[in-house]
Amino acid sequence: MRDKVRIALDAMGGDHGAAVILPGADISLTRHPDIEYLLFGNRAAIDPVLDGLPRLKAKSKVVHTEVAIRMDDKPSQALRYGRWKSSMWLAIDAVKKGEADVVVSAGNTGALMAMARFNLKMKEGIERPAIAALWPTLKGESVVLDVGASIGADEADLINLAVMGGAMARVLFDIDRPTVGLLNIGVEEVKGLEQVREAGRILREGQFSHFDYHGFVEGDDIGKGVVDVVVTEGFAGNIALKTAEGTAHQLASYLRAAMNRTWAARLGYLFARQAFRTLREKMDPRKSNGGVFLGLNGVVIKSHGGSDAEGTAAAIDMGYDMVRYELLTKIGESMTRDLKVGTSALSASGAGS
Amino acid sequence: MRDKVRIALDAMGGDHGAAVILPGADISLTRHPDIEYLLFGNRAAIDPVLDGLPRLKAKSKVVHTEVAIRMDDKPSQALRYGRWKSSMWLAIDAVKKGEADVVVSAGNTGALMAMARFNLKMKEGIERPAIAALWPTLKGESVVLDVGASIGADEADLINLAVMGGAMARVLFDIDRPTVGLLNIGVEEVKGLEQVREAGRILREGQFSHFDYHGFVEGDDIGKGVVDVVVTEGFAGNIALKTAEGTAHQLASYLRAAMNRTWAARLGYLFARQAFRTLREKMDPRKSNGGVFLGLNGVVIKSHGGSDAEGTAAAIDMGYDMVRYELLTKIGESMTRDLKVGTSALSASGAGS
Repeated sequence: MRDKVRIALDAMGGDHGAAVILPGADISLTRHPDIEYLLFGNRAAIDPVLDGLPRLKAKSKVVHTEVAIRMDDKPSQALRYGRWKSSMWLAIDAVKKGEADVVVSAGNTGALMAMARFNLKMKEGIERPAIAALWPTLKGESVVLDVGASIGADEADLINLAVMGGAMARVLFDIDRPTVGLLNIGVEEVKGLEQVREAGRILREGQFSHFDYHGFVEGDDIGKGVVDVVVTEGFAGNIALKTAEGTAHQLASYLRAAMNRTWAARLGYLFARQAFRTLREKMDPRKSNGGVFLGLNGVVIKSHGGSDAEGTAAAIDMGYDMVRYELLTKIGESMTRDLKVGTSALSASGAGS
Repeated sequence: MRDKVRIALDAMGGDHGAAVILPGADISLTRHPDIEYLLFGNRAAIDPVLDGLPRLKAKSKVVHTEVAIRMDDKPSQALRYGRWKSSMWLAIDAVKKGEADVVVSAGNTGALMAMARFNLKMKEGIERPAIAALWPTLKGESVVLDVGASIGADEADLINLAVMGGAMARVLFDIDRPTVGLLNIGVEEVKGLEQVREAGRILREGQFSHFDYHGFVEGDDIGKGVVDVVVTEGFAGNIALKTAEGTAHQLASYLRAAMNRTWAARLGYLFARQAFRTLREKMDPRKSNGGVFLGLNGVVIKSHGGSDAEGTAAAIDMGYDMVRYELLTKIGESMTRDLKVGTSALSASGAGS
């Protein structure tokens, strides 16, 4: 057990920058007093906020840089002007050098992924990284991946996603053999994209040591918690995630309107306000903020660009847990075994390259 | 104005068959007394149900066949044994022969699409059909397409979807120039699949006469009603639709649980029960049941396989509206003009084939 968790925080990322990120770091610190922060960014933006947060200030070291990655730059642009010197790069580099255990950034996703790949490198056997999200379900939580790290996935990529997601669920949910489902447009074997069908066949036939393949699942099975891990290509996965967020907002808005329409409804709301508070917490998208980059030699957490302080804290908490329970090491062990099964199943079928 | 709307109903489709489809037809008939039904299917299943629904019986003609398409057959299998003689084929054929104005089926989607294409043929200029869904939003409703008719879409397909969806929204929502958005994983131009980017470029540069191109939208923009028409490839569209349905169920279930937890919440529920009823209606997925097949020479409505009578009635209502307001003709007119714009923009860019 480590005596502290060292978090490298990109204080410049996201839509709001230090003004929101630092208060988020402070919230997380109250929950985990064993955190130490390395804060990367412009002192002109950081110091005034930090002065108002003495507890955070006492546990933080600021590394000044004037270069910040813009939210709308292409990854290649960001690498060109931001390598070696941007707050995002320096935060990642702290993990690389062993000065921090995890990096958390709310910055430009593409740039963060490009810099993390460039600096930390991919784990052996993984060609494309993934972003895994924790998705609240009727049964608890599921891991859903990829939610946007890369677009287009062939059968080999999908099998890698199954292995990585299975390993993450295994450790995070403490289940011996989590169930893994492939997202498709129909449970019948006949439907869906060629690569999804082929991946399904290999997953069904392979003897994976750390997860059970459930079969195809559909979009409405995610929220039901039908499987512990939902595997999908990044374009569809990102759209599923954002659509679910949008639907939750939409229904919350219907609910608010309904509870305001008549005096009886308003009175009912007063009686049930504790229940509504519980419901609101359950529906709070900030609580599941934080995507985990999988496939890299290091723990990188992406916080949502539009997050407020509470959302930022949730992302930092996730990074904290990943380090505290040594998830990366454990995920690595699971991955090493099951990736071999996947690779040999792929080459036996002639689908690998 | 027609004096009646003739609906060809596949009485054998869906998970429940005639026992649910005929009561659904009866509900729709009470709302639209000018409907006349042609019911296709096995008399042994139809007649006992029809005998209990005298009003429906009086407005229906039964066409007996013993062949029904199974829900899990491949389209090719279904075509092999079901062509010329299954309830699904005969219902489509009634539209082809001009004996009915619209066909409604809750059967196997792939088989319905294959038979409709085979028999009705595609409209000139359209290579791949689409299924359009009506999506309830905070502003009203949007057309979302394709939600699963075909998987994989190149830039030409996406532009056809924009033109077809734009035409449908124009007529259905009575808007002169509906706004059209392309579903992508980020609003920045730099992200997303190659074909989505290319389609975005063409839509932005083309002078389409019947819709305005808004730009990229993300999954959470659908429920906000940011655009009248959301265009996406069928795999991602189907996953978005089902994920939204799943999220709505999930939140309804949280709400039920919250309202049952304490006596105060239960009391509050009693006061607000009218508000909850309104909310339940608003969230009722049955009310937006019914996908419209676009791109064919005929109106084909796909009802959800698991629909109950109320859901079936919603799908029949949609078919009714499509005929009553001559949507197909009007959509055809819009399409003819804007498809030409799309085609010339595509060939100018060298992207068409």
